[in-house]
Amino acid sequence: MTYQKVTPELVAQLTEIIGSKYVIHDDMEKMIPYSHDEIFEAGYTTMPEVVVKPRTAKEISLIMQLAVQEKVPVTPRGAGSGLSGGAVPLYGGILLSLERMNSILEIDMGNLMVVVEPGVITNELNRSLAAEGLFYAGYPLSLENCFIGGNVAENAGGARAIKYGVTGRYVHGLEVVLPDGRIMELGGKRLKDVTGYDLLQLLVGSEGTLGIFTRITLGVLPLPPASAVLLAPFPDVESAVRAAPRMMIESGIVPAAIELIDRRSMELCCRFRNEKVPNMEQAGSYLLIEVDGTTEEVEQNYNTLADLCLEGGALDVYVANTPATREKFWKLRAAIGEALKAYCGENAAEDIVVPPASIPALLAEAESLSNQYGLESVCFGHLGDGNLHIHLLKKDENMAPEKFRQAIHAVLKKLYTRARQLGGTLSGEHGIGHKRKKYLPYVLGKTELDLMQGIKTVFDPNNILNPGKIIGPDPE
Amino acid sequence: MTYQKVTPELVAQLTEIIGSKYVIHDDMEKMIPYSHDEIFEAGYTTMPEVVVKPRTAKEISLIMQLAVQEKVPVTPRGAGSGLSGGAVPLYGGILLSLERMNSILEIDMGNLMVVVEPGVITNELNRSLAAEGLFYAGYPLSLENCFIGGNVAENAGGARAIKYGVTGRYVHGLEVVLPDGRIMELGGKRLKDVTGYDLLQLLVGSEGTLGIFTRITLGVLPLPPASAVLLAPFPDVESAVRAAPRMMIESGIVPAAIELIDRRSMELCCRFRNEKVPNMEQAGSYLLIEVDGTTEEVEQNYNTLADLCLEGGALDVYVANTPATREKFWKLRAAIGEALKAYCGENAAEDIVVPPASIPALLAEAESLSNQYGLESVCFGHLGDGNLHIHLLKKDENMAPEKFRQAIHAVLKKLYTRARQLGGTLSGEHGIGHKRKKYLPYVLGKTELDLMQGIKTVFDPNNILNPGKIIGPDPE
Repeated sequence: MTYQKVTPELVAQLTEIIGSKYVIHDDMEKMIPYSHDEIFEAGYTTMPEVVVKPRTAKEISLIMQLAVQEKVPVTPRGAGSGLSGGAVPLYGGILLSLERMNSILEIDMGNLMVVVEPGVITNELNRSLAAEGLFYAGYPLSLENCFIGGNVAENAGGARAIKYGVTGRYVHGLEVVLPDGRIMELGGKRLKDVTGYDLLQLLVGSEGTLGIFTRITLGVLPLPPASAVLLAPFPDVESAVRAAPRMMIESGIVPAAIELIDRRSMELCCRFRNEKVPNMEQAGSYLLIEVDGTTEEVEQNYNTLADLCLEGGALDVYVANTPATREKFWKLRAAIGEALKAYCGENAAEDIVVPPASIPALLAEAESLSNQYGLESVCFGHLGDGNLHIHLLKKDENMAPEKFRQAIHAVLKKLYTRARQLGGTLSGEHGIGHKRKKYLPYVLGKTELDLMQGIKTVFDPNNILNPGKIIGPDPE
Repeated sequence: MTYQKVTPELVAQLTEIIGSKYVIHDDMEKMIPYSHDEIFEAGYTTMPEVVVKPRTAKEISLIMQLAVQEKVPVTPRGAGSGLSGGAVPLYGGILLSLERMNSILEIDMGNLMVVVEPGVITNELNRSLAAEGLFYAGYPLSLENCFIGGNVAENAGGARAIKYGVTGRYVHGLEVVLPDGRIMELGGKRLKDVTGYDLLQLLVGSEGTLGIFTRITLGVLPLPPASAVLLAPFPDVESAVRAAPRMMIESGIVPAAIELIDRRSMELCCRFRNEKVPNMEQAGSYLLIEVDGTTEEVEQNYNTLADLCLEGGALDVYVANTPATREKFWKLRAAIGEALKAYCGENAAEDIVVPPASIPALLAEAESLSNQYGLESVCFGHLGDGNLHIHLLKKDENMAPEKFRQAIHAVLKKLYTRARQLGGTLSGEHGIGHKRKKYLPYVLGKTELDLMQGIKTVFDPNNILNPGKIIGPDPE
């Protein structure tokens, strides 16, 4: 695949479509923010040749037609808060930012649906919905920065998947611009639909490689009036992992979240935020459990779950049932990534999923492999759905960058292989993008990869849209 | 596309693969049950040339390789309880029944997952799970007869989609035999997975046209300890439709089911079962609402919802909170289809979905079109998710069959067009199969159909697997 460079003529044509104010071409400083996402490691940055900021599906359609004609690749971009390089313009070309398409078009109370543009910040939607007694449950923990469009492109997940699922569960309608510029409407305000193959869910999580979303219909839920958070220290990871499914089966309660934080993550996070949590001396891990519902439900349910935590071996249980105390616990959890970055500037943030009961086996392997290669592994994440963020840190801060990268590569190859043996895979919510593309053969077979390539070719025979992500050839 | 006939040589080869006991060839009587599904109308029956009953994925793989080589079509079949002709061998050829692959392979309490073969009867799974305090929530109302494999192939839905979603939400792993005989493993015991395109959910609902499922991993939930059912008569359909989202927003409660039964359906069903329900004189429609959870939750929630029903205009509210009374209400609901069949032997059972708030507009159109063509329309179904079963009955029982079919075709073309205008589509849970294939262009655009055809060709370039369903050419 050979792409053409962006020429002054192409820039002029793009300018004609969307206006000069929304085309960035010769200003390197203004283009730098569009050259990377939030990946922790170095080496995932590529400059676009031109940045365009269209406002409508029609404009995007014209841009795609032009790109196909001129053989110039197009990389769509939401907020750039991704963690797998999906929005990075790997081949240069046109970077297409959805930032101006940021309207909440409709809040439909009669159907419990909203219609939004892709550039709406996820938590802005939830703030608007709260006023109506509603909420959008599919959000990831980056909700203050990320865009809904990016959430859909990545099929973003978060801490509440065990009860509420992830983004895809709530996507019922999409307006999509296809790689050749055709505009297609899929689905609508309907909760069930078996009208042919599920193109809608195929596009969800396609990481901007099959189409560009220009309008999104999402299901919303009545806002639960109350919630409470439990923090339960356990002597080790294993007892916490075993306690979780048992407490659900015995109580019949599905919590809104069951988060696991290992001792080292908690320690580094408390140090970073200058806070304390109880039982730091004895605890090998912590569970953070949220329940939500009506006020009565919540009170009954957190009492039931607290008892079951203790029966399951928890050292103690702390209840947060006011907004301030709930927020304190969640802020700790949400700050772990930042704390790890502060502790060790460059580190590998992983996103492995395994069957929840296999988490102890995976963590044992991560620790052993890390030791072998001079690294330290810490772990936190979504126990309820088996999706853990293992971070690989330098043990010796003077480890040379090249040696660090080699060590990470060596550990990941073995860790992904182990995850697959355990019935898991390499990404639960961060996606493949460019970062994990080369590791796909460690968890997927040739048949799956061939079918994925076949689907990509059906949607994008010219390989114009977001090339180098998920599948297909790499840049030379 | 020209297919070859099943030859004695092919029968011999099939017999060699699976044994003579599991190949039916010359016995018409034994083949008849495999020639149709449960469609209400006449004319959807085609005889297979041979019926095979394999026991393993390996056997199915060999059968598919043979079929491709010999250019003989293969139609996979579960319980045959479908309502769109998906399991009918439209081109003759090989009918592949999954009935012998009926084992529950594993109930995994530590991961809240089960692994089953496709021929397990859906409610048998739930009976096994109940003993462990678990349940599978994706089941349709035909749960006593249907197979899990068919549920996955159709992405079957049921009455509880508003809270629990449909089949696809619970499918986390599939072993699939592809049309060319390759065996592929997708997903596993994991609740999140964004490792490339979502082939798993593409196969869910593909109606046996992309692959044959041979092992299925399903998520299960803790069994709610309690439930209750409310029956609320409303003066008309419109007030019932308006009350439903309001009561959810005001209470923060998502019921397990919100079913709508129009006056005429209720009347015919009561007559059929020789039962009575209150308020038949004044009621224009009934809501059947189920809540589930812990005992305390259920009691609070049904009281809250009963009050909100009355505020929303219900004529009265009747609570069923014992197993016997709950079952009475649900049995009434579940018997409507049968009651309509008894009343009018041949009728068109439709499965339209619209945004819930548009249900009154759709029903008004159905009534007006039916009158125009000498038909009667009755309606019941899943209000919570906008998926309604409109049945078109003969008004005059002496109406000639050919005239009846023409009238149905005329009404459906206009009704589907109206459903699309309202933001809806033509099937929520019954699927396309052969029955609705010709109507797809009324609700889908050319772009979507072209992409679906492209995907079919990627999976099945020889068009060997279940041809004539969803897309592709029809038999001459």
